Amino acid sequence: MKLIGYFRSSAAFRVRIALNLKGIGVEHASRHLRKGEQSTPDYAALNPQKLVPAMVLDSGEVLTQSLAILEYLEETHPEPPLLPKDPVGRARVRALALICAADIHPIQNLRVLSYLRDKFDQTEEGTFAWSRHWIETGFDGYEATVAGDPKTGAFSHGDRPTMADLCLVPQIFNAARFKVDMARYPTIQRIYANCMKHPAFDAAQPAKQPDAEP
Amino acid sequence: MKLIGYFRSSAAFRVRIALNLKGIGVEHASRHLRKGEQSTPDYAALNPQKLVPAMVLDSGEVLTQSLAILEYLEETHPEPPLLPKDPVGRARVRALALICAADIHPIQNLRVLSYLRDKFDQTEEGTFAWSRHWIETGFDGYEATVAGDPKTGAFSHGDRPTMADLCLVPQIFNAARFKVDMARYPTIQRIYANCMKHPAFDAAQPAKQPDAEP
Repeated sequence: MKLIGYFRSSAAFRVRIALNLKGIGVEHASRHLRKGEQSTPDYAALNPQKLVPAMVLDSGEVLTQSLAILEYLEETHPEPPLLPKDPVGRARVRALALICAADIHPIQNLRVLSYLRDKFDQTEEGTFAWSRHWIETGFDGYEATVAGDPKTGAFSHGDRPTMADLCLVPQIFNAARFKVDMARYPTIQRIYANCMKHPAFDAAQPAKQPDAEP
Repeated sequence: MKLIGYFRSSAAFRVRIALNLKGIGVEHASRHLRKGEQSTPDYAALNPQKLVPAMVLDSGEVLTQSLAILEYLEETHPEPPLLPKDPVGRARVRALALICAADIHPIQNLRVLSYLRDKFDQTEEGTFAWSRHWIETGFDGYEATVAGDPKTGAFSHGDRPTMADLCLVPQIFNAARFKVDMARYPTIQRIYANCMKHPAFDAAQPAKQPDAEP
């Protein structure tokens, strides 16, 4: 398999953590998002959405959308599991994952901020305030869900990493770029610290990728 | 079970279709989003994200995030299936669902448009152009994925409705409000027509809900 990503992409970061946790070796390739390399005809032929990541299977088939790729990896490489066994627990983990992957990240990713700059004449001050607003709105919901809930353990759901943590950690890296005050989120911070002690998370972080830039 | 939704919410609409397809009877309740009824303390206690839908189980546990609820319904009421059996097919369906549920809808829902109006002084012209841009960007990717692919059938994946269709149809209703030119998307239009002939989709549409308004 080949993962086509970008060091700073939150969505590619999620998939890298999953591959590390499950011990799946893949070839890595990169598309430089700030240079628009995700919009070239050859990449658009692989992923018509012109977004990273894309996962090219040995069969030649291409998977897109990070959460769909995570579910595929879970179904084809079930150990260690990224979802609990009980349906209510699975729904809780997926809902937490979607807070980050649907209700935060798509609203403040690169292409959206470009639109705000180009069409609505927003300065960095405006786009930073926008990003912080949606990150904080999402993290408020995440924190309120996990704080004080006995289902929360060392990680967002119990004492093993799940898809929720795979989506939370990249969003926290992103939050740091926009100077979100993480002191508001003590439970998220505790989970994050536990994740980053785990080599699967640590090795997947943007700065440790071959295509990383300052 | 009780589904707390809103007639015009795309996310609640997805869940209503799933319940209809699977023949699951639930109690329905509504929170009026334009009146802010999703932000009251009693509802925030159910869903700290203050978004609809929420599904209250008979056990009292609450599920949130429409895609997590769809996966829960699929796991607990597997017939008729909303996902194919093969992992690559499941990844394709989930990716299509996520184009709508992650990469279109969250960027142009009510709370985002309110921010654009209140903080960036955008008029209706600006917010409509914004909404159309993200809907068209997403539909461009959806159309390119399904057009000419032998995996596409009467519906987005084969000849039975899947989670992809459950997310696509509400997004098309939303697109109509923002006057998106659907002639650009012949395959999506064909799939949509087939969906709307199906009573499970028809009965779930906003105008047919008890809380519907003109």
